[in-house]
Amino acid sequence: PDLESGTAAVLRERQLTKPAGALGRLEELVQWLATWQAKHPPFINHPRTAVFAGNHGVAARGVSAYPTAVTAQMVENFIAGGAAVNQLCAAVDGDLRVYEMALDQPTQDFTEGPAMTDEAAARAIAYGMMAVEPGVDLLALGEMGIGNSTAAAALCLGLFGGEAKDWVGPGTGVEGEALVRKTAAVAEGVAVNKPAMTDPFEVLRTVGGNELAAIVGAILAARLARVPVVLDGFACTAAAAVLYAADRRALDHCVVGHRSPEPGHSRLLEIIGKQPILDLGMRLGEGSGATLAIQILKGAVACHTGMATFEEAKVSGRSA
Amino acid sequence: PDLESGTAAVLRERQLTKPAGALGRLEELVQWLATWQAKHPPFINHPRTAVFAGNHGVAARGVSAYPTAVTAQMVENFIAGGAAVNQLCAAVDGDLRVYEMALDQPTQDFTEGPAMTDEAAARAIAYGMMAVEPGVDLLALGEMGIGNSTAAAALCLGLFGGEAKDWVGPGTGVEGEALVRKTAAVAEGVAVNKPAMTDPFEVLRTVGGNELAAIVGAILAARLARVPVVLDGFACTAAAAVLYAADRRALDHCVVGHRSPEPGHSRLLEIIGKQPILDLGMRLGEGSGATLAIQILKGAVACHTGMATFEEAKVSGRSA
Repeated sequence: PDLESGTAAVLRERQLTKPAGALGRLEELVQWLATWQAKHPPFINHPRTAVFAGNHGVAARGVSAYPTAVTAQMVENFIAGGAAVNQLCAAVDGDLRVYEMALDQPTQDFTEGPAMTDEAAARAIAYGMMAVEPGVDLLALGEMGIGNSTAAAALCLGLFGGEAKDWVGPGTGVEGEALVRKTAAVAEGVAVNKPAMTDPFEVLRTVGGNELAAIVGAILAARLARVPVVLDGFACTAAAAVLYAADRRALDHCVVGHRSPEPGHSRLLEIIGKQPILDLGMRLGEGSGATLAIQILKGAVACHTGMATFEEAKVSGRSA
Repeated sequence: PDLESGTAAVLRERQLTKPAGALGRLEELVQWLATWQAKHPPFINHPRTAVFAGNHGVAARGVSAYPTAVTAQMVENFIAGGAAVNQLCAAVDGDLRVYEMALDQPTQDFTEGPAMTDEAAARAIAYGMMAVEPGVDLLALGEMGIGNSTAAAALCLGLFGGEAKDWVGPGTGVEGEALVRKTAAVAEGVAVNKPAMTDPFEVLRTVGGNELAAIVGAILAARLARVPVVLDGFACTAAAAVLYAADRRALDHCVVGHRSPEPGHSRLLEIIGKQPILDLGMRLGEGSGATLAIQILKGAVACHTGMATFEEAKVSGRSA
């Protein structure tokens, strides 16, 4: 973190033609951007949304409302420009990259053992690191993977404890019997893999998934490259939480773009201490909420860089 | 309201490549836009932010942290492009109009009698109607006026009752003695004018102000012209509430762009039954929160119009 750039942002905010603090969270976000881009003024000229897609062995247990074929079909839809994230990305003048992770080779069903081998997990993390390339100044992360809210719930249970039902929600819309199966799969997956869960990365390996591991890699690479990160909903934040569990400061260069109605998301946000930028009932994943939140970040930067100071505009300050 | 266009929006949402309802509030906002533009699909190609500026006699009682000269100075700043709303307007490709309302002739101090004559109030309402012009497809409303959070609090007290302190907050940042003076001015203004407050418009005339009356006019004209409206913070919403008090359906074509930390705003939003789009601690007025919220509305429209349907994208539907 470059505290000097962050401080420069704070000092400039005080001179702009508005009562101190009147732009609220926008002012904090500018300070955060400057701190983690290590630049003042901060800028968002080349935001990227990276969407990682993976398939999950546990999906075979009927934990999702949609068939696993939908993961690959949605990747095609991203490529063709037909998904929500395509429209939202275009609206922020962003660059959308879709990373398809061997969809024909789903992870192992984690109720029967580890979802990934050491090698597969390491490869997925390394793959995620590729999303950070020179020129990208802000990174929004998203995922696509039928069954991954089950994996995300298992990650949270493995990392932070509690009961399976604390972390399981409807995802894309499961209810009744399917929701019971989903909760059971989460409890079983964590119980079966418990002995191997000796650190947060082992939780990721044993009950996570390819796209979730890739998100971890992208967050790490972004930190090193001074690229601030916008997280998306439950699955994305659960992946990020692996890093939080390993080091309480590891997500300081990340904000959460939106709050998902998935009940586990609010619980998780409280644990990692993040207040989302938006709260609009979005529960689509695929980086949609994170990408929409870029609009707010861009607005914050536009105010910070474009506004006149009291002196420039000859506006009087406070009376008292 | 054109329920047919609203229904067409709902029907299309169901076919788009996402679980039903997964875009949350974005889907509702699209339905609302279609209903009030009376068009499907709805569009936001020419949004306008109209900022009305007026001065208040009650400001002479020391109820604000800033001198009244700031109203005119900020109008100059809007014209020069140096204010927050200029940057936010540019970010949404919007057209900013600033309406300066005889700043050298403030309203009367309402603690001593009516703020405006019948004629002045009617003229201000009519003036506000001019903000709605052909080609504008969405209207964000804002205000600038030193002392107007005092007038807004008096409006709320006059319209909805309670005690002065329920509606008075720091505004641009008053505290201590000044806050006591502000609360007293609100209580006194409503007490003095109570006999004249025979209907909501009389409340507006006696304790409102030019820019607040203009906002009322703009909202009325927008309804007739089928232009949906985005309201801003406390002062703007208080002006709008005059119409709510007159007719419970009068603000159905309006959404509230953001929640201000001014305590009266949340209280007022509960009364008029509106959930703001953003909640980012902004308390600047000048249409800044409403204009920022246009980003979300544009994102909603982009998803609605640009996304592929399940059929187009050959994506499988729910398993069960």
